[in-house]
Amino acid sequence: MNGRILPQCGVERFLILLDGPWATLIVRELLRGPQRFTELRGALTGISAHTLTHRLRRFEQHGLVKRTAYAEIPPRVVYELTPLGASLQDVLSAMNDWGTTVPEAALTAS
Amino acid sequence: MNGRILPQCGVERFLILLDGPWATLIVRELLRGPQRFTELRGALTGISAHTLTHRLRRFEQHGLVKRTAYAEIPPRVVYELTPLGASLQDVLSAMNDWGTTVPEAALTAS
Repeated sequence: MNGRILPQCGVERFLILLDGPWATLIVRELLRGPQRFTELRGALTGISAHTLTHRLRRFEQHGLVKRTAYAEIPPRVVYELTPLGASLQDVLSAMNDWGTTVPEAALTAS
Repeated sequence: MNGRILPQCGVERFLILLDGPWATLIVRELLRGPQRFTELRGALTGISAHTLTHRLRRFEQHGLVKRTAYAEIPPRVVYELTPLGASLQDVLSAMNDWGTTVPEAALTAS
């Protein structure tokens, strides 16, 4: 992505980093606090280990998530939001507020 | 989608209706005011006519967008947000606020 022309629009910048449902739902879970891989996977019904691994690695690269490995037996790995990741709280709160106002008829229409 | 079990979580409900970049960017454009199909497509670099048509139709079904056809010559069709659609303003503002705080290094990391 180096040398790539970055959009000026903040919404487009947001979408570069949170580009779909799984990315948003992983942040929702981590906003509850640090978690292990298995805890995250358990909370996200339907996500594959591959997708979760890939997403977490991308979040680490983009500075949204910190991965800490504890030299214990057995080894323990914990994922948590960085301050930049945690500042997504306002966005998810706005999503949640709006989502809870949507009438069921709108959600089930098709 | 009828008979489908709806999630209780507002974030998940939001993601049912805005499930990706194009959906969010279409709302961003319509938050500027009513627009014709060609105006929308012109503002969304890279979107295909098929995708835009499909997305707008879905938004209509879900009650986020209103389509008005004016019996003029040539005929004129305008798309605009309903009150429910317009209430997404807070979510997109939060996305924009956050997106503008993200350091370029985070966006270009890969």
